[in-house]
Amino acid sequence: MQCIEVLGKQEFSSEKMKKVSLFDTANLFCDLYCLRPGQSQKPHTHQGADKIYFVLQGKGTFVVGEEEKVLEAGEIVLAPSGAVHGVTNHTPQALNLLVVMAPNPNR
Amino acid sequence: MQCIEVLGKQEFSSEKMKKVSLFDTANLFCDLYCLRPGQSQKPHTHQGADKIYFVLQGKGTFVVGEEEKVLEAGEIVLAPSGAVHGVTNHTPQALNLLVVMAPNPNR
Repeated sequence: MQCIEVLGKQEFSSEKMKKVSLFDTANLFCDLYCLRPGQSQKPHTHQGADKIYFVLQGKGTFVVGEEEKVLEAGEIVLAPSGAVHGVTNHTPQALNLLVVMAPNPNR
Repeated sequence: MQCIEVLGKQEFSSEKMKKVSLFDTANLFCDLYCLRPGQSQKPHTHQGADKIYFVLQGKGTFVVGEEEKVLEAGEIVLAPSGAVHGVTNHTPQALNLLVVMAPNPNR
């Protein structure tokens, strides 16, 4: 059985946000994103794929489309196909996100 | 922006496990499953779709394929396409799960 204690996988990089792959299947990927203070995933777009961010720990400033909002642990946001989306850790604490995307752009 | 405080959506039913839809897109669904003590999602199979369960609160006894394992808050498990999978709340506390499936069988 492929089961993982998610925050046990956290890894940070001083260079940029760290993506840790949890599952990578024909239909989706599921990653843990780890952002140190000041790090971000720059706004970008995917055509034909939807992404979900769930905040595990910390607070992040999310952009989806033309809106910006600070979300904290326990909150989830959808970045639908075609919508610009990104996230920045504007806080002094680490930010950990569970991220699922489908279909899987790596396949 | 479609953002949700996930556990704020929890709902229970005395009849059976409650599924609360969070996102339902062309590519995936994302639900909150709420299980009272003793409730379960019976083992079943999907061909061509992968499901992820992330434990938000409580403990669940998961079956995937021929394995059974108790997972608790912060743990995630993959039920890949074709694998029998299900979950039971064998505890005296509520069990809340974040569930993502792709592709979306409702579409």
